[in-house]
Amino acid sequence: MKTAHKLEDLKRPVPSDIDIAQAATPVKIYGFAQQLGLEEDEIELYGHYKAKISLDVVERMQDRPNGNYIVVTAITPTPLGEGKTTTTVGLSQALGAHLDKTVFTCIRQPSMGPTFGIKGGAAGGGYSQVIPMEEFNLHLTGDIHAISAANNLLAAAIDTRMYHESKQSDAALYRRLVPTKKGKREFSPIQVRRLVKLGITERDPDKLTEEEAGRFARLDINPETMTWRRVVDMNDRMLRGIEVGRGVAEQFPRETGFDITVASEIMAILALTTDLADMRERIGRMVVGFSHAGEPVTCEDVGCAGALTVLMKEAIKPTLMQTLEGTPAFVHAGPFANIAHGNSSIVADKIALKLVGDDGYVITEAGFGADIGMEKFFNIKCRASGLQPNCVVLVATIRALKMHGGGPLVKAGQPLAPEYIEENLELLEAGADNLVAHIRNAKRYGVPVVVAVNRFTSDTDAEVDLVRRHAIAAGAEDAVVSNHWADGGAGSADLGRAVIAACEKESNFQFLYDLDLSIKEKIETIAKKMYSAAGVTFSETAERQIADYTRNGFDKLPICMAKTHLSISHDPNLKGAPSGFTVPVREIRASVGAGFLYPLLGTMSTMPGLATRPAFYDIDIDLETGMVIGLM
Amino acid sequence: MKTAHKLEDLKRPVPSDIDIAQAATPVKIYGFAQQLGLEEDEIELYGHYKAKISLDVVERMQDRPNGNYIVVTAITPTPLGEGKTTTTVGLSQALGAHLDKTVFTCIRQPSMGPTFGIKGGAAGGGYSQVIPMEEFNLHLTGDIHAISAANNLLAAAIDTRMYHESKQSDAALYRRLVPTKKGKREFSPIQVRRLVKLGITERDPDKLTEEEAGRFARLDINPETMTWRRVVDMNDRMLRGIEVGRGVAEQFPRETGFDITVASEIMAILALTTDLADMRERIGRMVVGFSHAGEPVTCEDVGCAGALTVLMKEAIKPTLMQTLEGTPAFVHAGPFANIAHGNSSIVADKIALKLVGDDGYVITEAGFGADIGMEKFFNIKCRASGLQPNCVVLVATIRALKMHGGGPLVKAGQPLAPEYIEENLELLEAGADNLVAHIRNAKRYGVPVVVAVNRFTSDTDAEVDLVRRHAIAAGAEDAVVSNHWADGGAGSADLGRAVIAACEKESNFQFLYDLDLSIKEKIETIAKKMYSAAGVTFSETAERQIADYTRNGFDKLPICMAKTHLSISHDPNLKGAPSGFTVPVREIRASVGAGFLYPLLGTMSTMPGLATRPAFYDIDIDLETGMVIGLM
Repeated sequence: MKTAHKLEDLKRPVPSDIDIAQAATPVKIYGFAQQLGLEEDEIELYGHYKAKISLDVVERMQDRPNGNYIVVTAITPTPLGEGKTTTTVGLSQALGAHLDKTVFTCIRQPSMGPTFGIKGGAAGGGYSQVIPMEEFNLHLTGDIHAISAANNLLAAAIDTRMYHESKQSDAALYRRLVPTKKGKREFSPIQVRRLVKLGITERDPDKLTEEEAGRFARLDINPETMTWRRVVDMNDRMLRGIEVGRGVAEQFPRETGFDITVASEIMAILALTTDLADMRERIGRMVVGFSHAGEPVTCEDVGCAGALTVLMKEAIKPTLMQTLEGTPAFVHAGPFANIAHGNSSIVADKIALKLVGDDGYVITEAGFGADIGMEKFFNIKCRASGLQPNCVVLVATIRALKMHGGGPLVKAGQPLAPEYIEENLELLEAGADNLVAHIRNAKRYGVPVVVAVNRFTSDTDAEVDLVRRHAIAAGAEDAVVSNHWADGGAGSADLGRAVIAACEKESNFQFLYDLDLSIKEKIETIAKKMYSAAGVTFSETAERQIADYTRNGFDKLPICMAKTHLSISHDPNLKGAPSGFTVPVREIRASVGAGFLYPLLGTMSTMPGLATRPAFYDIDIDLETGMVIGLM
Repeated sequence: MKTAHKLEDLKRPVPSDIDIAQAATPVKIYGFAQQLGLEEDEIELYGHYKAKISLDVVERMQDRPNGNYIVVTAITPTPLGEGKTTTTVGLSQALGAHLDKTVFTCIRQPSMGPTFGIKGGAAGGGYSQVIPMEEFNLHLTGDIHAISAANNLLAAAIDTRMYHESKQSDAALYRRLVPTKKGKREFSPIQVRRLVKLGITERDPDKLTEEEAGRFARLDINPETMTWRRVVDMNDRMLRGIEVGRGVAEQFPRETGFDITVASEIMAILALTTDLADMRERIGRMVVGFSHAGEPVTCEDVGCAGALTVLMKEAIKPTLMQTLEGTPAFVHAGPFANIAHGNSSIVADKIALKLVGDDGYVITEAGFGADIGMEKFFNIKCRASGLQPNCVVLVATIRALKMHGGGPLVKAGQPLAPEYIEENLELLEAGADNLVAHIRNAKRYGVPVVVAVNRFTSDTDAEVDLVRRHAIAAGAEDAVVSNHWADGGAGSADLGRAVIAACEKESNFQFLYDLDLSIKEKIETIAKKMYSAAGVTFSETAERQIADYTRNGFDKLPICMAKTHLSISHDPNLKGAPSGFTVPVREIRASVGAGFLYPLLGTMSTMPGLATRPAFYDIDIDLETGMVIGLM
């Protein structure tokens, strides 16, 4: 599967991301996909440079051993991010175009909303990018749109059902739900699922008792418990809190709001599902609220789990694209990294592991710092997939470590303080404990760790050397500088060699906790072992939720901590490697379909806003060439 | 461009639409597109059976004469619809597979929302369908999703702008809108457009006067005048009336609501635009509300017209699919037929007319009855495209004519009264004047008219003959029975022959009114000449709007009447061919970007709802085969 080629004539200074991306000539994706060993019917083109790939590949190649599985994570970042995606792409380009290895990159699809607000490129950056970057950042193959549609169909179905229930008797509801059509009256297969759940064995609609018909027909959702919100893939802060049902014909007001689409539980499902049948079941299990009697009401109960699956049936296929150096990349799923697990899809990783085979490499990325993305990669994603990781790449920057050592505030849109641009070994020395803590955490899972120092132009050799010494001392297999942003894969060749060497070491992967532990025990394990907390406190709300979830059998789910990414702790102000603090759990929510509980350790925003001058002021079409301009 | 093939082994009784569609084996669309004369770079595949086609075709074939241009419309329908799309598809199959002609079908993309509510297939029906019907009805190539994204980006931008303006002084706004970046301060090209509009000639941000900077920075939208609403492609009635901005951080409440996506002005633009540059300008011209000083505020003023165009740049390309008998179909755009013009896209028609060439046929469909869809096809769509129609096909059903003759109420979901199933020449005779009125209306445009009697199994020969006699007497070139639902193209062969003959007649196409007439004169012309109204009354609101629009130069736009489709008049209860009534104009709205004014003659619902038992109860995936089940 040789598709890679070395970049030549790298420009100095390094041009903007979009200029580099648009100057490149991607190859047509069909031939590219065939070179990877994909067969005609497994490739569905979406334009010239994107293709959805069938999940059937895994079955066709079931006898082929998987390749090496490498997760890219990072130290605790500054608000600017430390270049994980760029490192992920650069490392792939190094392995494929410079070290003659078979390689696949698996990354998340970005939300489109922030593209028009303020953000850096999600396709990588500099000479390490997935192209075409416009297609990567806009629409892609429609998966996020499919999630919006599915999410909002369920929302409409719930609200309308509550409305109809408010207007109709049990008997009238039942008559309408199971109407006589052409002289016949029967339950649809979807309705039979609800009968099964309710323990009603009768299948003739005319023979249900009045009580059974009533239980079947009335979901009786307690509006106070409704957790299902609508979504839109835009930064629209005025939708955070809204009141619906104010129309003249409705007059059925209810307080609710919109999240950005990638925060939908359906996105988390897309990332964690393993096939169509599994997705159908997960969608059906999603809990949207509770009845007045305290029973969970699911998407299946609402009757639209089949329709949601139909809406998602193309989205389950990962999208194949290419990097600047012609290595393949899957772009698939992009769940939030706080209220969800922040990892790209299992199906993409699985297909890629088969395609690269025994001596190949699949580089996948986990969101936020290692205390969040990597922890969830291991305990949630690998648990759901059954896959065994071979190596952790931990991305560090001199800038972030100086911040951890007490450097001045780093803020998006503001110039960096001189400490970050000039050599400052004291700050760096003081901040190295953050790196050390993440190495220690990663090693707890039995997987070899390689530190990648994502080098900025202002970093000095002495600084890089200091980081290297600390990393090795903390047990990293190696710590190497990576210059992929400026040099593409060539700049990551040393990192590539270190990763190859680490993958030859033995990996003894183990989970951090057992699912059979209680909810509290699982949370405490993560807080103490990953965050170095002294303990955990639970609010009254959290205590009540724990009791409810345990009663409903949701206590066997893994835990997905929703916390700040700006500290290993729950408190964004605690930099470096804090310890001895107490983690407060304010509330615990359940994504039963995705399959995790998420304790909230702070306020999580699930809908970004737009600044006074959003990025859209720069974005337009060049009407001469048809090219997009101003995309960052 | 021979792609057609005759259907064989037609089943009796006629199976369900989805069973027929799924039993067919569509050909791979790439080879299909090549056979039509399309070149590799003009074809962008979306899966195996759909392709977006580049607008470059029109330029490449500019020297080739256009084919014959046929619009399919209908008499005033019952609420069940009279089979226009099915006739459009069946006629194409007849021409292509049975009469050896080169043919193209151009139809609208359906909204996805109603698919899960209650509806008939939008892909045609029986043995006259566009396939695969699941792909046709779900997502297609993402155009409607792109419209949702573009529409909602503008909504978010407006609301957030109003919020920021409420919190900041002119100077602060200006400083943020034109920030100093790396020591430089400059207007973006999009901001320069606003300077031009404001008549500000200075281009150095530091040199604007305080007054100029204030005018530039503050849009000062009067919230009372905000007409831009958000959209979602779902039947979600609880979003008809909502209050946004209730979040803790916002506390900036405003009453608004959601429409279904196909009601967005951007959909109307997609249908009426001629190329990317034209779309960019139309999007920029969209008026979202008025300033406190009464000046129109446009999408361009808000600063996101470029971004919206970028979001729409793939949507502008029509989607190629195929019919059951292998003739090509463009599926593109689907604006509402009341508040918008209800016709598929100009670009699809233009490409198709080039591809079929001189002796070919392009069959395009206009929404609702001829008083609406055909009138708008002529006066709005043909005016924007410059294309000349050669023939009108007017679809009639015995059922609808009986209703016009005084037959009992026809209602969706309820059994038909016996009058509609048994021969009843009296009712039919009494109702024929509706057909006659539409023929008279169509002929006013100088275009030959062919009546297609869409035959139902219960229609008798005597009934069909009566309709035929009335049609010919009223001036139709011919009136033929079409049996495409049961027999595919073979059932439409007579209709095909009649259309071929009609296209050989001379067509002297002319518009109904001149754009230079006043708004009132244009409305009165349509009301009197098309509807046979005695006159028109204008509400106070309408009078004020007419004055405003005239002052702003919007009075030269064509008129897009928003009225019921269930009567030629404004009153759904006036069946047959009413006359002498007075049309009340309650309000007149402006779609300045799409390029029309739309007078409201009644209450138009722009957001459907869901019944107690929506269609989603039947929709699921067959997990064995991966096929969609239960789609209607």
